[in-house]
Amino acid sequence: MSDQPAMRPLRVAVLGCGVVGSAVVRLLTETSADLAARVGRPLELVGVGVRRAGRNRTASGIDEALFTTDSHDLVTRADLVVEVIGGIEPARSLILRAMEHGASVVTANKALLAEDGPTLYAAAAQHGVDLYYEAAVAGAIPLLRPLRESLAGDSVRRVLGIVNGTTNYVLDKMDSSGAGFSEAVEQAQALGYAEADPTADVEGFDAAAKAAILASLAFHTRVRGSDVHREGITEVSATDVQSAKDMDCVVKLLAICERTTDASGLEGVSVRVHPALIPRSHPLAGVREAFNAVFVEADAAGQLMFYGRGAGGDPTASAVLGDLVAVARHRVLGGRGPGESTYADLPILPMGDCVTRYHISLDVADRPGVLAQVASAFAEHDVSIETVRQQLRPASAPGGEHGAVLVIVTHRAPDAALSATVAALSELPVVREVASVLRVEGM
Amino acid sequence: MSDQPAMRPLRVAVLGCGVVGSAVVRLLTETSADLAARVGRPLELVGVGVRRAGRNRTASGIDEALFTTDSHDLVTRADLVVEVIGGIEPARSLILRAMEHGASVVTANKALLAEDGPTLYAAAAQHGVDLYYEAAVAGAIPLLRPLRESLAGDSVRRVLGIVNGTTNYVLDKMDSSGAGFSEAVEQAQALGYAEADPTADVEGFDAAAKAAILASLAFHTRVRGSDVHREGITEVSATDVQSAKDMDCVVKLLAICERTTDASGLEGVSVRVHPALIPRSHPLAGVREAFNAVFVEADAAGQLMFYGRGAGGDPTASAVLGDLVAVARHRVLGGRGPGESTYADLPILPMGDCVTRYHISLDVADRPGVLAQVASAFAEHDVSIETVRQQLRPASAPGGEHGAVLVIVTHRAPDAALSATVAALSELPVVREVASVLRVEGM
Repeated sequence: MSDQPAMRPLRVAVLGCGVVGSAVVRLLTETSADLAARVGRPLELVGVGVRRAGRNRTASGIDEALFTTDSHDLVTRADLVVEVIGGIEPARSLILRAMEHGASVVTANKALLAEDGPTLYAAAAQHGVDLYYEAAVAGAIPLLRPLRESLAGDSVRRVLGIVNGTTNYVLDKMDSSGAGFSEAVEQAQALGYAEADPTADVEGFDAAAKAAILASLAFHTRVRGSDVHREGITEVSATDVQSAKDMDCVVKLLAICERTTDASGLEGVSVRVHPALIPRSHPLAGVREAFNAVFVEADAAGQLMFYGRGAGGDPTASAVLGDLVAVARHRVLGGRGPGESTYADLPILPMGDCVTRYHISLDVADRPGVLAQVASAFAEHDVSIETVRQQLRPASAPGGEHGAVLVIVTHRAPDAALSATVAALSELPVVREVASVLRVEGM
Repeated sequence: MSDQPAMRPLRVAVLGCGVVGSAVVRLLTETSADLAARVGRPLELVGVGVRRAGRNRTASGIDEALFTTDSHDLVTRADLVVEVIGGIEPARSLILRAMEHGASVVTANKALLAEDGPTLYAAAAQHGVDLYYEAAVAGAIPLLRPLRESLAGDSVRRVLGIVNGTTNYVLDKMDSSGAGFSEAVEQAQALGYAEADPTADVEGFDAAAKAAILASLAFHTRVRGSDVHREGITEVSATDVQSAKDMDCVVKLLAICERTTDASGLEGVSVRVHPALIPRSHPLAGVREAFNAVFVEADAAGQLMFYGRGAGGDPTASAVLGDLVAVARHRVLGGRGPGESTYADLPILPMGDCVTRYHISLDVADRPGVLAQVASAFAEHDVSIETVRQQLRPASAPGGEHGAVLVIVTHRAPDAALSATVAALSELPVVREVASVLRVEGM
């Protein structure tokens, strides 16, 4: 405590000291003079909450005395709390306890926000504190502040994003080297772009949580992770990637949030995560390796794109510290950041109502009349075919006898109609296998 | 006035009713319910200040009773003032008067901010009101809020931007069609991308004002328009654009703001606007037509890019209304946006200290020993040559006798050394003309 209360440092607690937490702590120390000048008061790190004591933490360069396993106590001694533990518990309890004790919270926890964001918002409102989470989606890319604030006078129509670096790295490798999925995942793991258990990334759980957060902000409507239709990239084959190339397209895992209307004209929100073909001329097609990018379409602004690093210690810490400066400035100058905005309260439209285009690969018998039967199945479900490409399959391929591959691209159709078409195709004796169904976006 | 003071509408005055002003007024009306929900209180348009009465304004759809030529009075009757007149006066006087009467101000006026921003900031601080100006740089692209707020915990190293749509359109046309400068400007004028007098755009004045604003925010240092080294695109020839193509590059007018050190090790800021070659693989190379994009490099965040429409009524209005919601929310919930931040107070480094690469075209005599003489001139000034390409010029070309064109690309060198080299080259009898000097960036 100082004799000049106005210059009393703001006390900062950091919960979690993994890749992001240690970067936050390091940058807090290295740039303390800049941060103090920007906030108008010094920031003082009062503790770093960790799960286990006794680990060798000297390598981190952080003063050993700052570490504590009692995060429950630590959050009561801070004005500002940074939560970078991740996961639901104990992160949620610690955040709520911090707010009860009057601390503003900065978090990078997309899973918690997607599952239980409203509880955190309600606690922030009740205790008159801030909840900021720029780092939860697309790491270093300033994206949530633009959505929440810069576009606050506009109407967002659509958000189309590459928000998971691991899957983008895997798909980019498959595209550039022709590698299969497993091989590309192994490369990503060797380079640290994928975890030993890559499920959360490759099955789209991580992207779905981020899509829920983006849709909530874009459409002023509560969207949870469980509202998001989710398909991962494990079924994407080298053949699919090559077929995309033949169409001058690339396969990307997209998070898509749309304000749209269903068949009855009801306005609602469609939120989904799935692999999709996009044209190579689309700005998102050029997003390579583990980079992230998000394309936003708004009524007045038109098309916007935000590009940068979506993960990593320093990039994520940049977003965390930007938020920390914002909530610290509110302590110094008064005011508060935006709270939860759900006034539009649009319904979440079922996936069956989602209208887009499709790329379907069928393994068929090489017999006259096959195409006619296949085309009839599409016509019966009102799905209009745009192009058909037929490739002969060598006899040596699995299946023994001669066959062919039909690659069909449709015009726009509802997902329910496409699903019914695929079910009907599977029943056709001439169709040996529906090898893949991928959506086509960004045209 | 309402019986519930909390719900008294916030009174909005709009100064100027050109392309941007009329879009602001239209969107204020069309989206009033959304804006009220986001602000927490309705916004009421109390007047639109125009220069001349009696013009036929019915086409705009704006209630005639709202127009006034007495902006001096109008600004005293508003809580929030939008200034989209442009230019220095009467914009400055009206903004200062509005602030004196307690109004927060949203402006799109880059010229005024670049010339006299500190005066506006000082008035905002003195009267406890907000000054927001997202629309002043790169139109609809959320850029200033990310720089001022999202990156407030990071250190920006470099900003590289295409911030003028007119010149990007002209250079893009020259690149895609092989057109010369004048022809491309005429096309831009025919399509409404360039004004009848395109000087402010093609001579780089517009981009220089934006560069000053970006550098001030990025480096927490006061940078005015007159601090910016400025070169326009009027000297860029079809030959330069073709020569760039031969190097797999494209010519863009760039606004460049760098935190760097001079030869003596002094840290400072370099701010400049000039045409430059950038590799086609650089993300800015793909920015076509009248779009804008800004590339930001920060210590922790790494590389970020922001892309979108830099001009036009609706896109600019989107940025204005985003700011309007922000300043209105401060009226409802308390708090204020960031003020001027100049604590770093870095010196502006002279252009001579700026270190980059160069692309030089020389019209030379076709004689033995010419290259040796030219190379000596570079060596004498410590400018290292990376590549030389020689092209024979047909005898029918201007100049009569046989000649050759030497295209030289250098390694990195200070601007002063390059200027001295060019002066020395001009003195060589074997050099008929230094046809062009362009910088090479983004490698």
